[in-house]
Amino acid sequence: MKRSFLFLILIPVLAHGQDDNLTQFVNPFIGTDRMGHTYPGATVPFGMVQLSPDTDTIPYETGGKYNPDVYRYCAGYQYDDNTIVGFSHTHFSGTGHSDLGDILLMPTAGKLQLNPGTADAPEKGYRSGFSHDTEMASPGYYAVTLEDHNIRAELTATTRVGVHRYTFTGGGDAHIILDMMHGIYNYESKNVWTFLRVENDTLVTGYRQTNGWARTRTVYFAIAFSKPVESYGFANFSPAQVYRGFWRRFDQRTGFPEAAGAKIRGHFDFSTIPGEQITIRVALSPVSTAGAVDNLTAEAPSSDFEGTREAARVAWEKELGRVRVKMMNSDQTVNFYTALYHAFLSPTVYADTDKRYKGLDQNIHSAAAFDNYTTFSLWDTYRALHPLFTVIQQKRTADIVNSMLAHYDQSVHHMLPVWSHYANENWCMIGYHAVPVIADAIVKGISGFDYTRAFEACVTTARNGWYDGLDDYMHLGYVPDESTGSSVSVTLEYAFDDWCIAKAAGALRGKLINADTSLAGEFLRRSQNYRNVWDASTGFMRPRSAVGGFRKEFDVLSTHGQGFIEGNAWNYSLYVPQDPDGLISIMGGKKRFVEHLDSLFTMDLPDSYFAETEDITREGIIGNYVHGNEPSHHVPYLYNYAGESRKTQYWVRQIMDTKYLPAPDGLSGNDDCGQMSAWYIFSALGFYPVAPGSVRYDLGSPLVTEAVINLENGNSFTVTAVNQGPGNVYVKKVELNGKKLDRLWITHDEIMQGGKLVFYMK
Amino acid sequence: MKRSFLFLILIPVLAHGQDDNLTQFVNPFIGTDRMGHTYPGATVPFGMVQLSPDTDTIPYETGGKYNPDVYRYCAGYQYDDNTIVGFSHTHFSGTGHSDLGDILLMPTAGKLQLNPGTADAPEKGYRSGFSHDTEMASPGYYAVTLEDHNIRAELTATTRVGVHRYTFTGGGDAHIILDMMHGIYNYESKNVWTFLRVENDTLVTGYRQTNGWARTRTVYFAIAFSKPVESYGFANFSPAQVYRGFWRRFDQRTGFPEAAGAKIRGHFDFSTIPGEQITIRVALSPVSTAGAVDNLTAEAPSSDFEGTREAARVAWEKELGRVRVKMMNSDQTVNFYTALYHAFLSPTVYADTDKRYKGLDQNIHSAAAFDNYTTFSLWDTYRALHPLFTVIQQKRTADIVNSMLAHYDQSVHHMLPVWSHYANENWCMIGYHAVPVIADAIVKGISGFDYTRAFEACVTTARNGWYDGLDDYMHLGYVPDESTGSSVSVTLEYAFDDWCIAKAAGALRGKLINADTSLAGEFLRRSQNYRNVWDASTGFMRPRSAVGGFRKEFDVLSTHGQGFIEGNAWNYSLYVPQDPDGLISIMGGKKRFVEHLDSLFTMDLPDSYFAETEDITREGIIGNYVHGNEPSHHVPYLYNYAGESRKTQYWVRQIMDTKYLPAPDGLSGNDDCGQMSAWYIFSALGFYPVAPGSVRYDLGSPLVTEAVINLENGNSFTVTAVNQGPGNVYVKKVELNGKKLDRLWITHDEIMQGGKLVFYMK
Repeated sequence: MKRSFLFLILIPVLAHGQDDNLTQFVNPFIGTDRMGHTYPGATVPFGMVQLSPDTDTIPYETGGKYNPDVYRYCAGYQYDDNTIVGFSHTHFSGTGHSDLGDILLMPTAGKLQLNPGTADAPEKGYRSGFSHDTEMASPGYYAVTLEDHNIRAELTATTRVGVHRYTFTGGGDAHIILDMMHGIYNYESKNVWTFLRVENDTLVTGYRQTNGWARTRTVYFAIAFSKPVESYGFANFSPAQVYRGFWRRFDQRTGFPEAAGAKIRGHFDFSTIPGEQITIRVALSPVSTAGAVDNLTAEAPSSDFEGTREAARVAWEKELGRVRVKMMNSDQTVNFYTALYHAFLSPTVYADTDKRYKGLDQNIHSAAAFDNYTTFSLWDTYRALHPLFTVIQQKRTADIVNSMLAHYDQSVHHMLPVWSHYANENWCMIGYHAVPVIADAIVKGISGFDYTRAFEACVTTARNGWYDGLDDYMHLGYVPDESTGSSVSVTLEYAFDDWCIAKAAGALRGKLINADTSLAGEFLRRSQNYRNVWDASTGFMRPRSAVGGFRKEFDVLSTHGQGFIEGNAWNYSLYVPQDPDGLISIMGGKKRFVEHLDSLFTMDLPDSYFAETEDITREGIIGNYVHGNEPSHHVPYLYNYAGESRKTQYWVRQIMDTKYLPAPDGLSGNDDCGQMSAWYIFSALGFYPVAPGSVRYDLGSPLVTEAVINLENGNSFTVTAVNQGPGNVYVKKVELNGKKLDRLWITHDEIMQGGKLVFYMK
Repeated sequence: MKRSFLFLILIPVLAHGQDDNLTQFVNPFIGTDRMGHTYPGATVPFGMVQLSPDTDTIPYETGGKYNPDVYRYCAGYQYDDNTIVGFSHTHFSGTGHSDLGDILLMPTAGKLQLNPGTADAPEKGYRSGFSHDTEMASPGYYAVTLEDHNIRAELTATTRVGVHRYTFTGGGDAHIILDMMHGIYNYESKNVWTFLRVENDTLVTGYRQTNGWARTRTVYFAIAFSKPVESYGFANFSPAQVYRGFWRRFDQRTGFPEAAGAKIRGHFDFSTIPGEQITIRVALSPVSTAGAVDNLTAEAPSSDFEGTREAARVAWEKELGRVRVKMMNSDQTVNFYTALYHAFLSPTVYADTDKRYKGLDQNIHSAAAFDNYTTFSLWDTYRALHPLFTVIQQKRTADIVNSMLAHYDQSVHHMLPVWSHYANENWCMIGYHAVPVIADAIVKGISGFDYTRAFEACVTTARNGWYDGLDDYMHLGYVPDESTGSSVSVTLEYAFDDWCIAKAAGALRGKLINADTSLAGEFLRRSQNYRNVWDASTGFMRPRSAVGGFRKEFDVLSTHGQGFIEGNAWNYSLYVPQDPDGLISIMGGKKRFVEHLDSLFTMDLPDSYFAETEDITREGIIGNYVHGNEPSHHVPYLYNYAGESRKTQYWVRQIMDTKYLPAPDGLSGNDDCGQMSAWYIFSALGFYPVAPGSVRYDLGSPLVTEAVINLENGNSFTVTAVNQGPGNVYVKKVELNGKKLDRLWITHDEIMQGGKLVFYMK
């Protein structure tokens, strides 16, 4: 098993101590092999640009059907690959689907080739073979040698600008390929339109408009070369334009400064001397090419690669320094800071430096009073990533809520985001999980957004009868089987989201007119709807028809067609984070509940289970517990509620030890925009937000020996694990600020006030 | 011959006298049959919206080849047709190509039908039969009864808003069809993308992005209904989107408020009582849907159809009142004011009410200091339309020049517009005829634009070596035959444009650093390049190869493949408006020159001539003189330069009498954005700008009995024809301000100073 081969990284001797150099502990290759879907390229925290190598470009369909291979390439890079197609400027981190890979540049030497070639025969195209031996990645920096072209490629970035430095080791004819047809994966109609202008001999502008996961997405850009382009040309692979008229007079292939069409590749040619470096700055904008030029000027006014690289490193040091940990060993240190790195990749900034951005309504808006973000993978990230941000990214949490409220204001559906990126709602997955993010921020008193407006957006979203069975849910108390194939998952998640609204209403009682008792009561009642899909006869949540009967055929192991999505009845039946006591009660009391959990963690799954389930792999599971996907992330902490906190401690530690390895294939599932990483960070610190929307964090078994959380309010909260050791997974005693803690949780306020949490391990 | 049937219009008895009601003399149907390519719909002067019925929608290609039928439909309407497809919001007036017909609405009653049907079987689609008996058009107003649906449709407009009023005479189920697939003519890939949002039950927004004559064009809109929509839906005829994912949960056909794709038709459904009226306001924007909503609010805040109609009429009265004429008969009055009406349709406003517009670089710009215009059919309109504007639209002339300079600033080619519309350069026809427009404005002292910037833009444009043989032209003194199929036409027109630069340099001498003697000299030399394509052996301009020899095979009558475009050697050889004396000299003196002109006007053309030439018809010619197309428009006035002014007077009058008839088929060629009309207006007033760029207007034979030109400077210039009569075509004597004029021209200043020009006719 490849995972047993731990990735080599040079860890200095001071590796697992505190240090001002935290970026050294980040290994961007973690998760780049197989399931992690992370990328190794250069980006700054929450950056709009994620400049990273793409190791292949995959047809989305083969023979008219979805090509399952595309799943591997969600981040554009697979560690197993031997060739690099080029460096594109946008990447999702850890998702199970993609849409990006915009504006691919590839430097080549020698003969001009305008097709990417194939992995088997890279010499037939512009792509190049490469070896991991020449590859290097650290926060804000990536380098590789493109062997076929004898070019050293280095990448760094600002928030909105990707910077390339290409060293043409052998000199000679050099070409920069600009492939506007490239995407993370491609299909015939993906590009709706592209537009290019060679403004002068060092500046190219344009945009790429696509129809993909985002139905109507446009990325604008400006490319600045450090050296004047000597010649250039465009190859237009679009079907011939019907109206050509007087355009026929012009040779648009060479030296014609404007190109437009669905399928265009360009080349910019230079003569180089051996060892010559060409630096290329590529600014993106969600607004316009003028916005991209402004971003270029504001963030990377000169071709100072080293300066940009150092600024990126410093930005990462600042963000990583929000938590300083001592771990038991360097692998854990690398895991921790890489998790923190991955947690700080999304959401992404989505506005020009002048604060303007494209909204969901396709109009240009100004986020005058906040920083606008996109890339909301909310079904994943509401669980732990956003709660983590309420602790260590409070300013950003307010901006994220403000961004969601802008989305809501612009939504013709009157909905908060579900899965939103680049001014589009892609509707991915289920629920309305912007609500727990917002409610959590309200309940925890995060400042910087309008509570009235936010609360009203949550209520309106949750009352949108047209949305995914919600009308039935409001009338019947559950989403019926007829309404959607995921009726039970949807019901359970709506119920949780509704509880969050009730909690927010409670927090706002007396402060807001609308957050009155009846509204709190309405959503508290709705939060109990999980009971309406509980089938006591089987002891599982189970699909029900609109007239009330449970579905007859029912397989509690299968993840397909059983009323669940990306999970089975075993896992999803435990999805009542808002009311574990109620769940324990309907499941027959604590003893029965613990037996159920024990079975979950220890049972054997048949092979058929893995064959059918894309987002779940053997590596990601323990028994039937699925850590590689989100719905069960709170489950190990449920033992706490049944009087068996030792089992929480045991399994949490087990998961940290076995599901997170500091290797390219070390992640047991998609990182999902940082949710998997956020689980690790919380758990390593010894506590976890089982139910966002409450102020409570449940205690587990810390992995740190010591951690200092440097809070934005100036306080610091320290976690110490006395007698910490690989075998000492159990917590004998916990002290908060020197006093013994007689409960299994701490509160958000206790963290925010600063203080010391001491675990005594055994 | 249908032209003999003069269109009936109700002309009051005071028809050919002065009156405050000038709109009554405008017949928008003139030119709507066959060659005129005008449209009868509703628009205000220079309006962004031209809301007009489309009588068919034609496939641009049949069997993969250009479908010659599309030529007839440049304005969307052909008077011969019996059905109306609907009412779209953008139309060119008089062009020989189109691109528009955006945002088609069609009201229907009864069964919902989402296809347009065919002219033969309108009942199979949403289109309707109609009769001219029920049709009515006047400036800013159009009405027709849609017989198949028993609906009275009325249209009016503001600058940026089209207003529809539909009377559902029979009541019942009513539908408003919104056909985003419709265009003046269509082809598979014309729509790049369309986007629609039902913002609420009275407001729909969206945009249409096309790839046509304009390569990258987007029209944004907002539609407001006077009555809440009861139900609605969209049919998406686009190929199935590859990524559908979680969109599959939603029925997007009915009641789903957002639609996107290349091919969409929508319907908005209402119940109506007999006689019920629904008013629909449709605002356009070049910027965004938000811009369209703002335009709607600014220009048509309520559904006040009658108020909008009256405002449109008043706007037209104001513009038409710039010239008040008495003619010999009502036909001439209708001809004159309809010509003035057609002259005031283009260029069109291209900016939101907040002054923002989309530029050639696809960025949003603000025309803070001027009104931005588009639709520059410059090969046509530099000849007489823009000179007309220097007399009676000076403020607009400055704005037009400013709009051209904005285009130039945004042009990656560093070119002034050639044929430009909707933030695109379509490169149609030849030359750089923004130059004569700008030079004319400089020479005539039009204020309101920056002369330095304007002059530099002209010089830079004229030195753009990459453009259409210009590099060869600058080196060889002519465009060689190898360089373009229109080498002689291009050479002649470059030479004229260059003379304009020399004239502007002369006017600016001492005022601008760059307009120095050497620059004036350079372009004056270039203006003599017409001599380099003169073949004395044949007595015609003739294509030359780069090494110098004239082309061997040469047909002086053919308009195809002879080195000319839309003209033959007979006509184009006279294209030296900048130096008629020089032309007369190389043609062998005045006597030979007059003989040549006489032959031109009297010779017989073979049938083959008409078969091959799309833009030239028998109706448009006199002998071999082509009035139905532009290159010879100055020719009748050339007799003046050879001592035969009586022949100028004769032929000018002959052309006015026979080539302009007040009937649907009354125009002898495409009106070409007002150029044909401007020729008529000038000639009817008794003078014509043979060479824009000079201050001279050559005298002809006035058609007016009296005319008062009300100038923007407060002066008025009066033209009187004493002893005017249908047979009195010759001018015995001319007096200017009471003094006998001993020359055959007047100057621009003489007009601007106000005064009286009296022709004594015989």
